[in-house]
Parts: sequence; C-alpha cells; structure tokens
Amino acid sequence: MIAVLRLGHRKKRDARVTTHVCLAARAFGASKIILSGEKDEKLIKNVEDVVERWGGPFSIEYCKNWRKVIKNWKSKGGEVIHLTMYGLPVQKVIDKLKNDKDKLIVVGSSKVPGEVFELADWNVAVTNQPHSEVSSLAVFLHMFFEGSELEKKFKNAKIKIIPSKKGKKIIELK
Amino acid sequence: MIAVLRLGHRKKRDARVTTHVCLAARAFGASKIILSGEKDEKLIKNVEDVVERWGGPFSIEYCKNWRKVIKNWKSKGGEVIHLTMYGLPVQKVIDKLKNDKDKLIVVGSSKVPGEVFELADWNVAVTNQPHSEVSSLAVFLHMFFEGSELEKKFKNAKIKIIPSKKGKKIIELK
Repeated sequence: MIAVLRLGHRKKRDARVTTHVCLAARAFGASKIILSGEKDEKLIKNVEDVVERWGGPFSIEYCKNWRKVIKNWKSKGGEVIHLTMYGLPVQKVIDKLKNDKDKLIVVGSSKVPGEVFELADWNVAVTNQPHSEVSSLAVFLHMFFEGSELEKKFKNAKIKIIPSKKGKKIIELK
Repeated sequence: MIAVLRLGHRKKRDARVTTHVCLAARAFGASKIILSGEKDEKLIKNVEDVVERWGGPFSIEYCKNWRKVIKNWKSKGGEVIHLTMYGLPVQKVIDKLKNDKDKLIVVGSSKVPGEVFELADWNVAVTNQPHSEVSSLAVFLHMFFEGSELEKKFKNAKIKIIPSKKGKKIIELK
C-alpha cells in the first residue's frame, strides 16, 4: 500500500500542479492521495472523475491535520518517506525502501515545515537539483516499482487507450 | 544532445507547469529547452536564474514556429520523439532510442495538433494513462539515461546541496 501526502495545497496557485501530482500518483502505482492545505472540492472532483473514467482503485481525500496523518501512519508500522531536494540520493536508498511496510510518500509545495524532515523516516532526494514534486514523485515510484508500474492494469475503466505509432486510439469499455 | 520542445505554452495558465517542465528537463539531463506558444520573458528569466545559481550547461529559448524547429531537427539527422499518452509504451521502445542521434523530445500542453503525431519519428507513451508532461518527461529521461542522470554534475554552480538525512544543507561555491 502506497499513499501520497501532498502538503500545503493552495487553491489558486497550485490547482494544476497538485492535479498533476494526483494523476502521477495514480498512474505510477500509488493507491491513494491525501491532500492538505486549502480544501479544494473542485480538484478532488476532477481527480475522482479521472478515476471514474480511467479506472482504479485510487482514492483521494482531504486532511485538516497532516501531522496526525504522518503520526498515525507511523504508529501503525508504516514508513514515511519525504521527497525533498535536500535528502539522501534516491539511487542510494531505494533498495532499503523495498520492503513490505506501507509507504506514505510526502511531497511538499513551496515551503515545507522543518518538522516534516524530523517526522519522516526517510528524507529522499530525486536529484539534489530544483525541479518539481510531479517529477520527483513519478521517478521515485518508477524506481520503487522497478518499471512494473508501467504495466499496471486499472480496474473498472470506462475508456482505454490502444497504443499506436501515430494518432489516437481510444476505446470505450462499457 | 537532448533538447526538449514545449508546445503551446500559455502565459497565465501554464506558467508553473511549464517552469516545472523546464526544470525537469535540466535536472534529468537535457541540455536545452525550446518554448513555443505565448512568449513568456518572465518564465525564461526565472529558468535562466536557476541555471545561473545551480549550474549548467542548460539553455532556454523561444521559437515562433515549432514546425520549423521539428523539420530543421530532422533535416540535420536528429530524431524527434513526441511524448503522448496515445503512443507506444516507453518500456517497449526505449532501447531502440538509445543511439547516437540528437534527440528532440516534444511535450505538449492540452491540445497537441495532429500534425505533431505525423512529424514525430516516435510517439511514445510513458503509461497510457493521464498524468503530466512533467512526469512523462522526467521518467522518459530517467529511462533513457538509465539512472546516470541522477549522478550528473552541473558546471559553474554557485550553490549546491549536500545530501542529508534530516534538514537542509546548502553550500555556496563562489
């Protein structure tokens, strides 16, 4: 079980990037995203619509208190991995993370409270360069699942793409 | 030589996502990004500031005519790879792309003209699921470079992160 916790969402400024974080979480094999920061019903609805059409299982929820989410996760034996450019290189730690513990992957927005670095079991850097929480999350999950996520089948999808050399092929499944 | 062409940038709507595309391109080993769509001096300046502080080489430029960029690239013997959810699975084609030809990686925004699918040598899908041009680009480059991009050293950086278990360590180099 892999869940993603997105910190500090701001409705106006982050709508698209947070949406991309949610979709990348789903596409690369997480089963849940928890949003904190400003509550954004429209964004939640949009992501639920994607799951409805493209399949799941994938759930999205909002939390008021991210500290509680992290602490609960740890108290149940799960591991908390904070993705940050300041952390240890992902290529050096990823093998240690391949175990059976449930994972909560925390991704920040602009300012991540110092407390997150303390609460996390692992602070992991997908490069120590500035880029994006979307790319960090996707590459992390890709390395974690070793590419098997690229073959993932989604359940109860209403539409599906047939890969093609040129052009667009979508089929309706129901 | 790997360059990225970002199609259809819209100043208001795409500022942050395009910035993330630029930074992911740089962080994961491309040496150049070409933006098309609306000209956005502020975004270009922001990315140049990142290169100035975090190192390069990485260049950013604006083009008025993306068709010309693609056609020029091909006429010089380079390969054009369009990342699209409709394309062939990246895991099936990536080995064929590991050759010495210069690569132009094209990433779209909301609506990519059908012509792009025709002009591209390869239409490649990083999953056939909806997610983000940021995650597609990063995972594609990660697979292309086989993880070596994670060890990339940037030149003439003014600041650098020292990876750490907890907290933030930045050093100034000049």
